[in-house]
Amino acid sequence: MTYQDIQALDANDPLAAKKSQFELPDNYIYLDGNSLGALPKKAKKRATEVVEQQWGQDLITSWNRHQWIDLPIKVGERIAPLIGAAQGQVICCDSISVNVFKLLCAALALQKGRHVVLSQGDNFPTDLYMVQGLSELLGQQQCELRLHAGDDIEQAFSADIAVLLLTQVNFRTGYLHDMQKITALAHEHGILVIWDLAHSAGALPIELDKCDVDFAVGCGYKYLNGGPGAPAFVYVAKRHQTATTQPLSGWMGHAKPFDFVADYVAGEGMLRFLCGTPPILSMSVLDAALEVFDDVNMQVIRDKSCKLAQLWMSLVEQAKLSNELLLKSPVRDEWRGSQVAYAHPFAFAICQALIARNIICDFRAPDILRVGFTPLYTSYADVWDAVNNLQDIVQKQIYSDKKYQQVSKVT
Amino acid sequence: MTYQDIQALDANDPLAAKKSQFELPDNYIYLDGNSLGALPKKAKKRATEVVEQQWGQDLITSWNRHQWIDLPIKVGERIAPLIGAAQGQVICCDSISVNVFKLLCAALALQKGRHVVLSQGDNFPTDLYMVQGLSELLGQQQCELRLHAGDDIEQAFSADIAVLLLTQVNFRTGYLHDMQKITALAHEHGILVIWDLAHSAGALPIELDKCDVDFAVGCGYKYLNGGPGAPAFVYVAKRHQTATTQPLSGWMGHAKPFDFVADYVAGEGMLRFLCGTPPILSMSVLDAALEVFDDVNMQVIRDKSCKLAQLWMSLVEQAKLSNELLLKSPVRDEWRGSQVAYAHPFAFAICQALIARNIICDFRAPDILRVGFTPLYTSYADVWDAVNNLQDIVQKQIYSDKKYQQVSKVT
Repeated sequence: MTYQDIQALDANDPLAAKKSQFELPDNYIYLDGNSLGALPKKAKKRATEVVEQQWGQDLITSWNRHQWIDLPIKVGERIAPLIGAAQGQVICCDSISVNVFKLLCAALALQKGRHVVLSQGDNFPTDLYMVQGLSELLGQQQCELRLHAGDDIEQAFSADIAVLLLTQVNFRTGYLHDMQKITALAHEHGILVIWDLAHSAGALPIELDKCDVDFAVGCGYKYLNGGPGAPAFVYVAKRHQTATTQPLSGWMGHAKPFDFVADYVAGEGMLRFLCGTPPILSMSVLDAALEVFDDVNMQVIRDKSCKLAQLWMSLVEQAKLSNELLLKSPVRDEWRGSQVAYAHPFAFAICQALIARNIICDFRAPDILRVGFTPLYTSYADVWDAVNNLQDIVQKQIYSDKKYQQVSKVT
Repeated sequence: MTYQDIQALDANDPLAAKKSQFELPDNYIYLDGNSLGALPKKAKKRATEVVEQQWGQDLITSWNRHQWIDLPIKVGERIAPLIGAAQGQVICCDSISVNVFKLLCAALALQKGRHVVLSQGDNFPTDLYMVQGLSELLGQQQCELRLHAGDDIEQAFSADIAVLLLTQVNFRTGYLHDMQKITALAHEHGILVIWDLAHSAGALPIELDKCDVDFAVGCGYKYLNGGPGAPAFVYVAKRHQTATTQPLSGWMGHAKPFDFVADYVAGEGMLRFLCGTPPILSMSVLDAALEVFDDVNMQVIRDKSCKLAQLWMSLVEQAKLSNELLLKSPVRDEWRGSQVAYAHPFAFAICQALIARNIICDFRAPDILRVGFTPLYTSYADVWDAVNNLQDIVQKQIYSDKKYQQVSKVT
């Protein structure tokens, strides 16, 4: 593999032009869009508009004039086609953590006589923490967390399980679950499934409706580029909506919030999954950011994502780094999301040394170097340059410099 | 009262210069800062900075470089002196609704053998809805909502009540509860108190510590001018923090969130009241907005607020509107927040007719015209002009025009 090969790949990239829709710092290689997506130019423009015109000039009238009141549904419907959801099943609100709580309560209430929530031990911790919080509140007889250690979660299915809570792409290793197979098997055992799409929405084609998924949550600030801490989203299959309620029954989820009556009546459809007043600035910016996806096919994004990852892994092999950096991600595309992970005892310092060279990836405790691929703004040349620097840092043990080992608050 | 008197009031207003710290539309009289505060210039500047530099250029590194990770505490500590809270007791997060849920669970868990939550029938509905949601989840034996009809809530105190959930200033009438007296009386009955400061934080001096308050929530987007849907805040008295947990135990509330361990361990102090990843754009803007309060004393704000309201009520009398517009707010300052409310069968249309003249106040179902006073950017001349227009609209029955009766989605 030569640099000429790389140039050819970039020259033939159907997504190459997309990079111009983002504001990116100069001389930066950004391989952390799986943690925080880059700033779309349209999002930047909307931020100014919503602050200066909508808030500053139109003030309270913007709830009607600029339809702030409809934003949660509007943004939900923009996300829906990216995750294979027909209209009326997705709404934007709160954080993934809060939304997991809502869906756990909703799903458990549908499952009379069952109370076990099954998940993976290495699921993203907040999902597990939310089950633990609910379990503390309701007692183990009403909500019990059961953890399975491996990726073969279906081995743990049994008739006493109420809910499967599973992240489609593992946040450390990038392992990609087979949504269709797992959902179908879960249903055979009478288990309802909540998928967490944090590391897959916007990264690969998802078919929630076709896979007959019950519930899902997902993240606005990773592959959807909605900005730091952008609101999350909730999916509830149409068939469950009428029978389902959730306890975070704030006024925005009321059938008639502006009647200001004392008794809660759940709103129609997805509205009942809203709680309090949404963060309009953050949600408006996410709304605009999603326009980037208007003219792209998720399969085209996925194809490039796989090629970027394969290129990365080949170059790491070619650079003879494989003995030092232990690959923790599946090699086969169908089992891997849009990231690769390597274990190394000095993973944190390697990551810091890369960042010092303006090559941004991240560290995940205890020993994982994580590299994310975001096909909308990452080129094959970025991968080439990053691996060259990685080779330099690892083979010359540049990471052993103490300055790269200083622990930061956020990794 | 003549226009000359009004001019003298404005000339002697110690807060007059504050208006220049806000971006306000020209030829606008804004009497709805109690619903959505105006845009502080510093907030506008910060919005650009956080979007363009922090997100756009510094990307994921901003969690450390710009201390995004500390924002919930930083903003909480900025709010603390405005509500009479010593350090380490306030944190910024989520919405009021979500935070009410956290505190209800926390407070009920401290009250073994009691399960009744007392509130007012005309409390802001979301507070009641959150109790109802928890009650549905836990059952009436664990959480039961009891409503009292009047403002004399202390008449309903009894030894079976676990928690009093009360909004300090009524959202419709502006009735202001005596926090010190009610908290003390509640404690005599062994009742823990959650105060909702939505309509008081930033509007009047609050002394949570001095009043020995247990818990409080409040709003970032009203008198604190944090922008539409700005995150809310939580206060927990130091004495309760260690013994208290809450079930929305997301990863941001973990003692070591970046260790990514499977078991939840509640963070120190107020950290345990965090849940998911915060909306950084919205929270940063609130942080900057709060700088407006750096050099003002809440008592000075309160004094002007009372004078604005008294002027409003006098002018309404002077204009002979009192027979048509039925005052629903207490006349005496010590019983009223920073708003006045009038009942009128055509309140909605009157409000629309005022808005058509760029005089912004709001309507609250079923028949309330609500006028808010925000001393940082409202002048006595604003009040004079607004009442003159109100007189015109009411006495000439301009409100009876059909165009003012078209119902809007948000009121």
